[in-house]
Amino acid sequence: MQKTGILGGGQLGRMLLQQAVNYPVETFLMEIDSQCPAAHLCHHFVQGDIRNFEDVYRFGEFLDTITIEIESVNVDALEKLEAKGVKIYPHPSALRIIQNKILQKDFYKKNEIPTAKYITLQSKNDLELQRSFLPGVQKLAEGGYDGRGVQVIKTASDISKGFEGASILEELVDIHKEISVIIGIDEKGGTALFPPVEMVFDTALNQLDYQVCPAGLPEKIMWRVEAVALKVVRSLRSPGLFAVELLVDKAGNVYVNETAPRVHNSGHHTIEANYCSQYDILWRILLGFPLGNTEIIRNSALVNLVGSTECSGDVIYEGMREVLAMENTYVHLYGKKQTKPGRKMGHVTILGNNPSDLIRQAHLVKSKLKVIA
Amino acid sequence: MQKTGILGGGQLGRMLLQQAVNYPVETFLMEIDSQCPAAHLCHHFVQGDIRNFEDVYRFGEFLDTITIEIESVNVDALEKLEAKGVKIYPHPSALRIIQNKILQKDFYKKNEIPTAKYITLQSKNDLELQRSFLPGVQKLAEGGYDGRGVQVIKTASDISKGFEGASILEELVDIHKEISVIIGIDEKGGTALFPPVEMVFDTALNQLDYQVCPAGLPEKIMWRVEAVALKVVRSLRSPGLFAVELLVDKAGNVYVNETAPRVHNSGHHTIEANYCSQYDILWRILLGFPLGNTEIIRNSALVNLVGSTECSGDVIYEGMREVLAMENTYVHLYGKKQTKPGRKMGHVTILGNNPSDLIRQAHLVKSKLKVIA
Repeated sequence: MQKTGILGGGQLGRMLLQQAVNYPVETFLMEIDSQCPAAHLCHHFVQGDIRNFEDVYRFGEFLDTITIEIESVNVDALEKLEAKGVKIYPHPSALRIIQNKILQKDFYKKNEIPTAKYITLQSKNDLELQRSFLPGVQKLAEGGYDGRGVQVIKTASDISKGFEGASILEELVDIHKEISVIIGIDEKGGTALFPPVEMVFDTALNQLDYQVCPAGLPEKIMWRVEAVALKVVRSLRSPGLFAVELLVDKAGNVYVNETAPRVHNSGHHTIEANYCSQYDILWRILLGFPLGNTEIIRNSALVNLVGSTECSGDVIYEGMREVLAMENTYVHLYGKKQTKPGRKMGHVTILGNNPSDLIRQAHLVKSKLKVIA
Repeated sequence: MQKTGILGGGQLGRMLLQQAVNYPVETFLMEIDSQCPAAHLCHHFVQGDIRNFEDVYRFGEFLDTITIEIESVNVDALEKLEAKGVKIYPHPSALRIIQNKILQKDFYKKNEIPTAKYITLQSKNDLELQRSFLPGVQKLAEGGYDGRGVQVIKTASDISKGFEGASILEELVDIHKEISVIIGIDEKGGTALFPPVEMVFDTALNQLDYQVCPAGLPEKIMWRVEAVALKVVRSLRSPGLFAVELLVDKAGNVYVNETAPRVHNSGHHTIEANYCSQYDILWRILLGFPLGNTEIIRNSALVNLVGSTECSGDVIYEGMREVLAMENTYVHLYGKKQTKPGRKMGHVTILGNNPSDLIRQAHLVKSKLKVIA
């Protein structure tokens, strides 16, 4: 039986292991926290630091395949393991590009993939020198995650808010829609593309409000979005599963925002809404099985359950009964014992047909189900 | 977080734990074999004999709820735990009725539930005395499972094949269709009925050939089947999830064959084919949540993957790639390392619309995917 390791034990690892139950695979998981959401669902839990060379190398030495559920892993160790013959999906070379926003933007440019114009900064001082480029958005080259390491710099007076260290400064796109496309790609280059998802953000809280699938885009823009996302994934030259986040402006121009080399929040709905889920497709790729059907069964909306602001401590889910009583509504909790403001604690998928009904139901779920302490 | 225990760690426990991932529950599992299919998917694995009073009592003492995935558990211990306040779904009283085929048949009779005529035997000698009742089928009162403990006695010359010990002798029904109905029932008596499934048996091998959902029955017979199954479950006066197996003869008469007080092989397809699966509905009942939608999303066929005759040893799945390449076909393997002739090693669910296409695909899966050693 193939031995597959997962680096990272959060909710993405949890749902990946939930799907592994169907397949002939012996699962290994590395995470520093033995109480993490995925720890109890693998065959072999290994406590360790996924950013540490020795830990990752020793974890992977006797495995057949390794995948990740978070980007911040030790790529040097993965490279050494790859040289030894362990299959690493995504390839360390793709991970290196994605881990660093400067390399990622240079990669898009080199491959003629549309992305917002940008310049590279080495320090906050560089930001001062680039006043003429403003307004823009500064993104730290490394270490940003879930909105951290990103700062809008509208005018010179915002420069004090800027980051020190290597970063990019991007032109602001006049965003009409934010789209995510999930694509699996196997060893032979065969691809499985999921119908694009539209992510709607709450600009006040700077977090996802809800997402709907399929995205509400005219057919021609949809084609462009899919073509661009496919080009990103093919150019990375690595098997695995990728989420390509794109921005569409009012004129219908498409820009790649960023790419994640792993299962993604914007693919949670595929568990119920598509014939094969993103987790299923990744296992098929890891195990060398044929790709599956990514088509939609039902349209869907998805709401993240995040910890309420001003609540920290032992989590309480208020309104679970009401939400579970709603038709074709699926609650997924991640098993985190402690809530914090904004922490991702679970999600709810709603199946339906009519997009406006789905959005109404998404708001209903948000108003009913509260993550408090 | 609620603490729920499962007695038994086979494939049913495995799929029950796969669904538990979504819910706020701390899972405990008891099984004698620490390598059983479900062992690695719970929070706390307890090695023990589910038929032993002490083992079961100690396992359950600190739990909030207990359920089962196999009937052969120690009911005395469960009764004592119930008296202590642990919620046991199904109730020990229902388990007692079902564990013994004589009590089960008497229960149907008492509740005016249609079932094949029968007489009770205490020994093989009784069988001799009941020659005038033949042809019939003898079923051992206790210990029968998966076709074992069942023997057709056509004429007096078959009596030598009969069982010693307490049993029933049933009239043979002229079977037109074998049907299974899965029903969840919550604490307040609310029910969630899954559309009836038709089980097609391979009479030569005496095992399930394939099953399809919904069953191919005229509407009026379907209503009768559902009404009878509901009556069985309501009469048991116990929350839980039940599979009622029924026989329909050519005249359209409906007979209850037997009832299982747990998730069931005939409900595996509900994972993909229904809005909520049998596993989901049982968790909702265990956790006191509202019942969910049991409607069909797509028609389905299901094939059990059983160990080939004359093959024992380390399992090999031949033809996995071909089956996974078939459209909307879902393979579930149970993680058993050793195959034996007839052993249930996995199942395949096929989604579609047209019943005859589904049956054709079921046969294709059976011809392609072989469980060998």
